[in-house]
Amino acid sequence: MFPDQWLADRCGAVEVSGVRKIFELGKALKNPINLSIGQPHFDVPEPIKAAAKGAIDAGHNGYTVTQGIPELLDPLRADVAARFPGQERDVLATSGTSGGLLLALLATVNPGDEVLTADPYFVAYPNMVALAGGTLKTVDTYPDFRLDLNRLADAFTPRTKAVLLSTPSNPTGAVIDAGTQKELADLCRAKNALLISDEIYRAFQYGEPHASPASYDPNVLVVEGFGKTYGMTGWRLGWAHGPKRLIQEMAKIQQCTFVCAPSMVQHAGAAAMGYDVSAIVADYKRKRDFLMAELKGDYDFAVPGGAFYLFPKSPRGTGTEFVTAAVAQNLLVIPGGVFSRRDSHFRVSYAASDDTLARGVEVLKALARG
Amino acid sequence: MFPDQWLADRCGAVEVSGVRKIFELGKALKNPINLSIGQPHFDVPEPIKAAAKGAIDAGHNGYTVTQGIPELLDPLRADVAARFPGQERDVLATSGTSGGLLLALLATVNPGDEVLTADPYFVAYPNMVALAGGTLKTVDTYPDFRLDLNRLADAFTPRTKAVLLSTPSNPTGAVIDAGTQKELADLCRAKNALLISDEIYRAFQYGEPHASPASYDPNVLVVEGFGKTYGMTGWRLGWAHGPKRLIQEMAKIQQCTFVCAPSMVQHAGAAAMGYDVSAIVADYKRKRDFLMAELKGDYDFAVPGGAFYLFPKSPRGTGTEFVTAAVAQNLLVIPGGVFSRRDSHFRVSYAASDDTLARGVEVLKALARG
Repeated sequence: MFPDQWLADRCGAVEVSGVRKIFELGKALKNPINLSIGQPHFDVPEPIKAAAKGAIDAGHNGYTVTQGIPELLDPLRADVAARFPGQERDVLATSGTSGGLLLALLATVNPGDEVLTADPYFVAYPNMVALAGGTLKTVDTYPDFRLDLNRLADAFTPRTKAVLLSTPSNPTGAVIDAGTQKELADLCRAKNALLISDEIYRAFQYGEPHASPASYDPNVLVVEGFGKTYGMTGWRLGWAHGPKRLIQEMAKIQQCTFVCAPSMVQHAGAAAMGYDVSAIVADYKRKRDFLMAELKGDYDFAVPGGAFYLFPKSPRGTGTEFVTAAVAQNLLVIPGGVFSRRDSHFRVSYAASDDTLARGVEVLKALARG
Repeated sequence: MFPDQWLADRCGAVEVSGVRKIFELGKALKNPINLSIGQPHFDVPEPIKAAAKGAIDAGHNGYTVTQGIPELLDPLRADVAARFPGQERDVLATSGTSGGLLLALLATVNPGDEVLTADPYFVAYPNMVALAGGTLKTVDTYPDFRLDLNRLADAFTPRTKAVLLSTPSNPTGAVIDAGTQKELADLCRAKNALLISDEIYRAFQYGEPHASPASYDPNVLVVEGFGKTYGMTGWRLGWAHGPKRLIQEMAKIQQCTFVCAPSMVQHAGAAAMGYDVSAIVADYKRKRDFLMAELKGDYDFAVPGGAFYLFPKSPRGTGTEFVTAAVAQNLLVIPGGVFSRRDSHFRVSYAASDDTLARGVEVLKALARG
């Protein structure tokens, strides 16, 4: 028998993802209508595949330097310089967006520190903060998922080390507008706390253009990804940009953890930088509009400005009760409690084929009216 | 300016790898004789490349399940069942061997705990243990790099949580024989401590067959890799096998850190399982024998039973002083102090072409005699 006392205390603080529990549930279903998936439904575009395969053939298969290959870092640096003129930001290629977020938290959060976020939040945030020895404190944003900066300001304590926010948000699709981003950056600076901006869904924004809080403060750390944008979530490539000192500390920790982002994928990332995803994004906007038009009247929801999720209120009972009823009708969605202290909503992913989406809509309508 | 007080204390406990410092030094040299590299000098074999490219073409580009794809886990499980009959070991595909070691330490080491290892040790061990909040305590094994189990036993304290050993060793190439492995497993069981066996160089063993301490205790955790064996260090694939409870906790932590090993690489790993590396290993044995024959008389060294390193004593001065003199002669090797509390030796990697190795040998001979 393995002695339980050999396990570290942090094992108790890290929970199995509720999304994974739904996946397990879905395994029992034959051909479910799957609107639970947190990744694009399209495959990696051919030129990006070709770049990965070309790198393999060319023998780019050994360790890369920790920070990333120049072929990738140079265009990333140029992109950052264009979007954040006048700032001296450094960049780091990471092993996925999760890898970048973990490095940022390990580099800044001491045991006992607090990190603030908006509720609902990305499912892994509490676990990531716990791995760094900290605690995630949440600020409720129901029912419209707009972050109230007065409530955020009230949540600061002397132990607050960082604020971690995603825009657009998973699971709500909520977008923080430019004016609020500026106030947010001002607030964090006044409170002497690091602002970590998770912009993994930056490419998927459907109304106003994307705004980053880093535009208003060079000390904001931004983490971005390639996986969602180019359908390569399994390839594990993200990147971070921010103040040089913090990026260098993150690189130091990457050296003894992730070592480097996968070598051939870094080459593919360089190719992806030149790939136009506007048609894909337009298609996702169309899917969002279809879903909203179909569910309007039957469900309460806030209009999501980005990502590929809708986060409606359960028409009756808890989110978990609603999802249990949905699964009984062969439909997979995720209960809101997975992403929140509340269990009143559920997450629908519209990263799916039109046919799957249409079938899911029929089940959802029947469930609301049943 | 980025406020230094935003950085976590662990940033001070994690050091930039001394190997990297030599790389930086080497950048100033034009066409150096490079015997500093900790990875094979051959490219990934074609069938393994083909499997990675085939997986990309087949659209295996999204997230995989956390633990790893069945196509990879099934042959890994069969391999473990054949080597450790009668044990109920579980397996986990990890993001490199470093990824597996980090998960093991995060899952078991509490802040303030101690982890024991042999000195010399792998350069990242102190950093990895520090990230988990622990301290690495070392047991000196100079001059022959054989682990004295009495000294190891004396190093245990009430805070000792785990023993972390690599066999064959980086940087010494030392191999722990089967008899010692059994005593080691017995000692750790008696001391109520987890034994973590880092077997990343298992394929590169030149005398007696490889022995794992897991043969003598089912609670031993083993971490292995694909990178060194198949020349794919940049692809980030390793694996762990051990008691089910520990593997499940490691998988839970992988979910919110590494997420999954790269998807196409997991498919390539499955193909690699059937690839015969005996010709490669025989070639490395030949290189080892050449290096030892050439340096005998000029240098003191213990015969390395595995890996692809020789760890000779500096003929005069510290390891760092010797390496400085070597770099002045256009030869890159690594000072022993990078891997040790002592700075008396240096590491030569013979993962190099015969020509490079021969040129390096001439410089080394001249340095010893100069």
